[in-house]
Amino acid sequence: MIHTKQNIAIIGSGLVGSLLAIYLRRYGHTLTVFDRRPDIREVEFSGRSINLAMSNRGWKALEEVGVAEEIRKIGIPLDKRAMHVIGKPEYYQKYGKEGEAIWSISRGVLNKRMIDLAESAGVEFRFEEKVWDIDLPRAQVFTGESEKGEWKAYDFDLVFGCDGAFSRVRHKMQRRSRFDYSQDFIDVGYKELTIPPNEDGTHKLNSNSFHIWPRGKFMFIAMPNLDGSFTCTLFMPFEGEVSFESIKTKADAVHFFSTYFPNVKKDIENLTHDFFKNPTSAMVTMKCYPWTYWDKVALVGDSAHAIVPFYGQGMNAGFEDIYVLDQIIKEQGDDWGAIFKIYQKQRKPNADAIAELSYRNFIEMSSKTADPMFLLQKKIEKRFSSHHPEKWIPAYSRVTFSDKPYAEALAIGDFQEKIMKEIMAIPNISEKWDSEEVENKILRALEESNH
Amino acid sequence: MIHTKQNIAIIGSGLVGSLLAIYLRRYGHTLTVFDRRPDIREVEFSGRSINLAMSNRGWKALEEVGVAEEIRKIGIPLDKRAMHVIGKPEYYQKYGKEGEAIWSISRGVLNKRMIDLAESAGVEFRFEEKVWDIDLPRAQVFTGESEKGEWKAYDFDLVFGCDGAFSRVRHKMQRRSRFDYSQDFIDVGYKELTIPPNEDGTHKLNSNSFHIWPRGKFMFIAMPNLDGSFTCTLFMPFEGEVSFESIKTKADAVHFFSTYFPNVKKDIENLTHDFFKNPTSAMVTMKCYPWTYWDKVALVGDSAHAIVPFYGQGMNAGFEDIYVLDQIIKEQGDDWGAIFKIYQKQRKPNADAIAELSYRNFIEMSSKTADPMFLLQKKIEKRFSSHHPEKWIPAYSRVTFSDKPYAEALAIGDFQEKIMKEIMAIPNISEKWDSEEVENKILRALEESNH
Repeated sequence: MIHTKQNIAIIGSGLVGSLLAIYLRRYGHTLTVFDRRPDIREVEFSGRSINLAMSNRGWKALEEVGVAEEIRKIGIPLDKRAMHVIGKPEYYQKYGKEGEAIWSISRGVLNKRMIDLAESAGVEFRFEEKVWDIDLPRAQVFTGESEKGEWKAYDFDLVFGCDGAFSRVRHKMQRRSRFDYSQDFIDVGYKELTIPPNEDGTHKLNSNSFHIWPRGKFMFIAMPNLDGSFTCTLFMPFEGEVSFESIKTKADAVHFFSTYFPNVKKDIENLTHDFFKNPTSAMVTMKCYPWTYWDKVALVGDSAHAIVPFYGQGMNAGFEDIYVLDQIIKEQGDDWGAIFKIYQKQRKPNADAIAELSYRNFIEMSSKTADPMFLLQKKIEKRFSSHHPEKWIPAYSRVTFSDKPYAEALAIGDFQEKIMKEIMAIPNISEKWDSEEVENKILRALEESNH
Repeated sequence: MIHTKQNIAIIGSGLVGSLLAIYLRRYGHTLTVFDRRPDIREVEFSGRSINLAMSNRGWKALEEVGVAEEIRKIGIPLDKRAMHVIGKPEYYQKYGKEGEAIWSISRGVLNKRMIDLAESAGVEFRFEEKVWDIDLPRAQVFTGESEKGEWKAYDFDLVFGCDGAFSRVRHKMQRRSRFDYSQDFIDVGYKELTIPPNEDGTHKLNSNSFHIWPRGKFMFIAMPNLDGSFTCTLFMPFEGEVSFESIKTKADAVHFFSTYFPNVKKDIENLTHDFFKNPTSAMVTMKCYPWTYWDKVALVGDSAHAIVPFYGQGMNAGFEDIYVLDQIIKEQGDDWGAIFKIYQKQRKPNADAIAELSYRNFIEMSSKTADPMFLLQKKIEKRFSSHHPEKWIPAYSRVTFSDKPYAEALAIGDFQEKIMKEIMAIPNISEKWDSEEVENKILRALEESNH
């Protein structure tokens, strides 16, 4: 395959932008990464911030360019959920089989490392240089101090928009005819809080667990950091009876945590201060199509498909974009028109599938976890899966511990759901849920589908 | 009710903008309408352009401010569809009951008249003045020659965005968090063509009909103008076997019309010239929420809810927005925060409903009209409706000849569809479709729903 050297711009120096730069640099292309923000390596940074859950797809993309081992050093493997239910002792739910885990990694630490790696591979970073406009057919990039001020023009052969959910590159594409676009916010927001380490630097909670305090319409989670702290997130409706809106004073905040999270309350650092200092952030599902413009411009990662975080797949999906794009480049060589066409056609259904799965997880967590019939269904599925592990792989495992397409995970999940609907309709199911009759009925349903 | 005088800006001098100005001017408010285009009354204008179908909701909004009679003079009532099916003589389908009709009105002629009416009521129009930005919380409007040039700032109390599907006002709102937005293009485009009058100025086709040449995946329509001409529209997929893309030469165009529209082909003016001169336009469904910002800014018409044109309700829905908004103003007086809240809450479900109904009409026309079972279902419905006119009002009549909420028309339509699904499942339905058994079964289903 011929790979003629290209002059390539990447907009955005986040995780996806810097990994894509590392990938493309291997072909000898010239890479310039623009970011309106300062160099993350030079700003003061607590090392905590938002945490990511790196799973199979993310690791695979890192392994391809030989940086996975390097990154594993800054992560903590989590092989289970630690459930904190009121009136029950803490209990654990294994994520997968022996050896399967998701990895808690600090976004900031990871991003710094990725920029280091890209830079040492010869990628040029232009920080604090905001891209205001792009001439799509000419792959020309305009930057400047302000939107109305003087702009500088750069000519490129290719431009990649890795500038996140509120992408300027996509924004430019969106003004064209026949560009489909949607942004849907959920009515739940989130706020970051922190659990500091013990005095001896150890973690206050089990460090190889993803901690969850489910409370129906809202929940609290915690992910461990290397320094012994936990990054916590409170997910809660913006408005309503129990909501961010309803917590107006420090006393309200104390009362809220005392009522719903009595055990973890004492461990949270500067609770009442941080609660009002830290922003309440919104979450959006963003879809668009096409993702590319001629053989000139392509969107990768959140700029093409932002999703809600309830499956922990945002970064993993972005990294998989890069892995798949690279496979296509290897096959198609210099034909960037073909590369972009194949890329968007192959990735779009998978991006839509993980968006749907993530949104469903949000609905499931916020409204179904209190439903005894839903919990019973999950118990039946778990029992069946443990007896027939090859016949019933849970959707979570297909998404998290495999690299099969997200669209397949969604389709098989829907099919499993159809079978379970019949099972749940069995009279007295709550009495005979663990019977052979139920198990055989599932087996038969699976067999019928194979014919 | 107290109505304190407000200084109000309306962005967009189209049909919705100019009618809204007429409405608001009655309260003594100061009205300034901005439009980036020149005064439509001063540009050369053929009087043909795109035609509108004014129906009940549109007329009601015009009657409220006493301009309906004035506008009726520039319209032509259409009481039926004229169907042009290959191999069949032309036949007619009545739209509704005796006296019910939709009105063919030239958008340009109507718009000019509305601006005249608004101006004589004391509304100030600022043409060729493009609004580039809006400070939402301050209701401040910025205009100028170019985006990067000098801007002029205007202070208002209220700003209304009536600037259509690609609204600049909405664009500004869209950059805020928790603003839901979607734009979905259909894969069918349209092109305008013209049938000129006879030499004596009369119409070449029946002038009180909406003419349709249905051809499955594509269709041709014609609406009469006062000058004896018809404005025609060809709807056809952008890509595919029979598509705009596949017609590349004048010979292709002639062959296409000879094959599919042999009878009307000879009447189309400058067919091969116009076919390539006139643009192929796209159609979009655009939804968003919220429609308002505090007590400062509101979207009205297409800027809030652009729909595909297959129900002929785009302008009617926009005019109904104004009528409903005005009713709320009468109730709430000076409380613009409350007015805007009630307005968007009341209109949003109805805008979504007419978007859905319009999209379904597109699907129906493009894929179902060739299905014999679908046609049989329509025949059964028609027969039942003629025997029991009060019990089975077709969705078309609810939308077109009533002012009940669109959402109600959609819900009742869905309910009727459910009944018809059962009816169509009757064995041998195609033999006994006109039997008493079928009629009684529908009656029973309707009665059951009343309990």
